[in-house]
Amino acid sequence: MERIPILRIGDLLLVTIQVDMHDSLALTLQDDLTERIVRDNAKGVLIDISALDLVDSFIGRMISNTAAMARVLDAQTVLVGMQPAVAITLVELGLTLPGVKTALNVEKGMQLLGKNYA
Amino acid sequence: MERIPILRIGDLLLVTIQVDMHDSLALTLQDDLTERIVRDNAKGVLIDISALDLVDSFIGRMISNTAAMARVLDAQTVLVGMQPAVAITLVELGLTLPGVKTALNVEKGMQLLGKNYA
Repeated sequence: MERIPILRIGDLLLVTIQVDMHDSLALTLQDDLTERIVRDNAKGVLIDISALDLVDSFIGRMISNTAAMARVLDAQTVLVGMQPAVAITLVELGLTLPGVKTALNVEKGMQLLGKNYA
Repeated sequence: MERIPILRIGDLLLVTIQVDMHDSLALTLQDDLTERIVRDNAKGVLIDISALDLVDSFIGRMISNTAAMARVLDAQTVLVGMQPAVAITLVELGLTLPGVKTALNVEKGMQLLGKNYA
């Protein structure tokens, strides 16, 4: 399975990262996501990392880059579902994810993007 | 990563299957999902299989069983994102997924469950 699915909910896109990222998978995701933002006219991107026990500098940079790409396409990115241990590791690594908004879970992320799920 | 994340959106649960299922992963998913239906008081479960190129009899049975478990817990299951090739294979294999509702994508699945994403 060499492609991370991108789900559309209203004008938001939802990406759930479940597998260990490597270079080509990250590049494919960025390609797919930027294409989908344009095609679906998306206003926001939710990236769920609740399945990740570990976020290293590679994934951290990938997330920052993806958020920057979304931003120039006029879509906001919210990172959701971060585990406590991941937050600890990120700060210890000096990765503060500049420019990336975070929320505790998908629902709160949607609210942050101005969407209320009824 | 030996756990498939379950995302809550309102009173729905969303599961995106991205990796090849095997016995223990399927059992863990069923355990987690039934627990989450009860804990979150969920009314519906969306299972997205858009990342799967192939659905064999094992996955087909797993999905049917999961839907049956959800049903006895008073939650409806909708299978979303099936690729055309998967539909062809399923029917050729004689797997018609009895008791499982399907929708083209997450949004239509939510509508089927009576939820409109605003």
